[in-house]
Amino acid sequence: MRDVYVIGVGMTRFGKFLDRGLKSLTQEAVEQALKHAGVEKNQLEVASVGNAYAGIATGQESIRGQVVLRAMGIGGLPVFNIENACASSASAFIVTWMDIALGLHDVGLVLGMEKMYLEDRDKRLALFSASMDQDVLEAFKQMAEASAKSAAKKPGSKKEGGGKRSLFMDVYAMATRWHMEKYGTTQRQLAVISAKNHQNSALNPYSQYQQSMTVEEVLSAPEVSYPLTRPMCAPVGDGGAAAILCSGDALSKIGASKPVKVRALVQASGRDRDVDDPDIGEIVADKTYEMAGLGPEDIDVAEVHDATAFGELRALENMKLCPVGEGGPFSEAGNTALGGKIPVNPSGGLESKGHPVGATGVAQIAEIVWQLRGEAEKRQVEGARIGLTENGGGNIGLEEAAMVVTILERV
Amino acid sequence: MRDVYVIGVGMTRFGKFLDRGLKSLTQEAVEQALKHAGVEKNQLEVASVGNAYAGIATGQESIRGQVVLRAMGIGGLPVFNIENACASSASAFIVTWMDIALGLHDVGLVLGMEKMYLEDRDKRLALFSASMDQDVLEAFKQMAEASAKSAAKKPGSKKEGGGKRSLFMDVYAMATRWHMEKYGTTQRQLAVISAKNHQNSALNPYSQYQQSMTVEEVLSAPEVSYPLTRPMCAPVGDGGAAAILCSGDALSKIGASKPVKVRALVQASGRDRDVDDPDIGEIVADKTYEMAGLGPEDIDVAEVHDATAFGELRALENMKLCPVGEGGPFSEAGNTALGGKIPVNPSGGLESKGHPVGATGVAQIAEIVWQLRGEAEKRQVEGARIGLTENGGGNIGLEEAAMVVTILERV
Repeated sequence: MRDVYVIGVGMTRFGKFLDRGLKSLTQEAVEQALKHAGVEKNQLEVASVGNAYAGIATGQESIRGQVVLRAMGIGGLPVFNIENACASSASAFIVTWMDIALGLHDVGLVLGMEKMYLEDRDKRLALFSASMDQDVLEAFKQMAEASAKSAAKKPGSKKEGGGKRSLFMDVYAMATRWHMEKYGTTQRQLAVISAKNHQNSALNPYSQYQQSMTVEEVLSAPEVSYPLTRPMCAPVGDGGAAAILCSGDALSKIGASKPVKVRALVQASGRDRDVDDPDIGEIVADKTYEMAGLGPEDIDVAEVHDATAFGELRALENMKLCPVGEGGPFSEAGNTALGGKIPVNPSGGLESKGHPVGATGVAQIAEIVWQLRGEAEKRQVEGARIGLTENGGGNIGLEEAAMVVTILERV
Repeated sequence: MRDVYVIGVGMTRFGKFLDRGLKSLTQEAVEQALKHAGVEKNQLEVASVGNAYAGIATGQESIRGQVVLRAMGIGGLPVFNIENACASSASAFIVTWMDIALGLHDVGLVLGMEKMYLEDRDKRLALFSASMDQDVLEAFKQMAEASAKSAAKKPGSKKEGGGKRSLFMDVYAMATRWHMEKYGTTQRQLAVISAKNHQNSALNPYSQYQQSMTVEEVLSAPEVSYPLTRPMCAPVGDGGAAAILCSGDALSKIGASKPVKVRALVQASGRDRDVDDPDIGEIVADKTYEMAGLGPEDIDVAEVHDATAFGELRALENMKLCPVGEGGPFSEAGNTALGGKIPVNPSGGLESKGHPVGATGVAQIAEIVWQLRGEAEKRQVEGARIGLTENGGGNIGLEEAAMVVTILERV
């Protein structure tokens, strides 16, 4: 197995871009990554493209990667179009990595992209349910609604306005309440996570939200589904993110500076399990640490899948950055803030950097690469040498349908 | 790079199954492949799932593989959901192959699936355009219609009934007329190819059409777009196909019998080119032969992408099974029939076995595996030892958006 390096990354700002399509978003991200890597587009030999929803959103299924790459004059090379819900482009990262590690090609692209702001609101809602089993969606919906009704409401909370909304946040809220009951996690601890992420994203020019928030502001924001308030939940967004990978042989040919080595990466799918069985995230973390020959104590910085603040809390536990059940107090004590023991989501995370689903996996990798190269400017984690990304997507039973963990190292 | 073997294959009959969904179709194909391989479902360590259209057809995007596999009790393992139009599951085959060749896992699944017969006819038509760039679709449509109008019609031909239909066959017809003009290819030669495939599929219990046709019957059938008559065009269909792959280490552990070795497999994408530049199919064929250390003279049997009879003709030339321009006379002389010099599409091909888009790549591999194991019954190519598959999908300019060629060998 050959070593593989990330030599350049790029991304658009995440946000609401009603006047831009996937071609425009991807072109900006890919050109930035190529420039960062010092690679010309005709040097690319393989590409993997992660996208979750273009089939439903735009009618472009089947060959979405070829279509956007052709628009910027890239063709001929093998293109793998990969879907895995919110983990689509982390999964795509694995495919290009496998290709280069195996020796098939020397220089490859990974692209993540998503267009979620659509004129048609019903279509936008349809995107979310596409990441669940269509046949069990109705049963799931009833379960989540019943659970939400019986949940204790925060006194005096401002309930989010009526109308249709995504079922996903109800599912996250249900899992959050389970954790609160089992481990004594508090809504304030979740608000600390969210406020930290909004503070970080104010330092990140690529973030959808660039306004800092306090814990009190997060707590007093409208409630989406108890205990989650709006700033604790990732927004809908448009965006693209890209990474250039190469083999060790290609490093000197390209004259790459500050390469970041892929130490380990593991993917798994959720399975039907009992509520107290180990989470798929824990299982994947163990395998990733084993593949890297490293442990959680070696991680200097992490980007994790905070589709909600609870997602980050659970990821801290699953990635063994703190003991199971202690994600709340660990966060409240400031360990995951910039300058803390293990800064988590210095980019602002999904909650505040934004979450254009198919772009998120590569955007996490982009942030870690910038951090390890010392290029993260105001949000730089000093001396970061080893970073981790955790990216989960979709839903199978109690778990993510796809979970990908990656460990990267500055060499 | 480790050697990888196909140790079992399975498929549903292709056809119109209004009462069956993707779960039912895939379960049948996967169970048959597992049984053929002598592998239990809990021995699977990785899976790649090719599907082109479920997002549009059923609203199930993002995690389609996990959803169908969970329904038959398969979970936990990494699942890569791959799209590449008609080449989706050949592309998925490469991903599972890379994983095992790299040493990440020892036993893996490749699954191809498609559900195209939908109650909603407009939706069915939308499937086809999903394999072209949505932004250039209108321009392409006008070009194909203008070309069709100016084309010489066969005197007295029965034109296919009015109403909406797929643009794809107009595009294929345009390419066919170009070949006829340049090389003197005749409509009768195309009819010989089509009749041969319908005769083969009458011997194949998995075929959508199981009725033999003569050259005269093919010629006198309704015209879809000159010179293509209806039996020269692949039908819409539902179906699933599966293959079990393993490493050399796993062969003896499993006790696999009659393993088929993956000698080579190469994928590329179409690019913008001049009409007389080499076809992407030729380029991929050259690379595949080089990777295998074999030449076209070594191939005993081939399954190629005859979405139309012209697709087979062009594949014969691109795969160098005959010289460029001579695909028509070569076919007319009977070289590609069962018992001929190089039998092509013994299964009946896409034209007559059927073409549930995402299932086709693995179905081609299934046929070659049966042929190389001597299990193809009435359509057996005697003594076949080395087989080739050619699977193309979607459209970029003059070429397929994805082209995959595979060479397999009985060991």
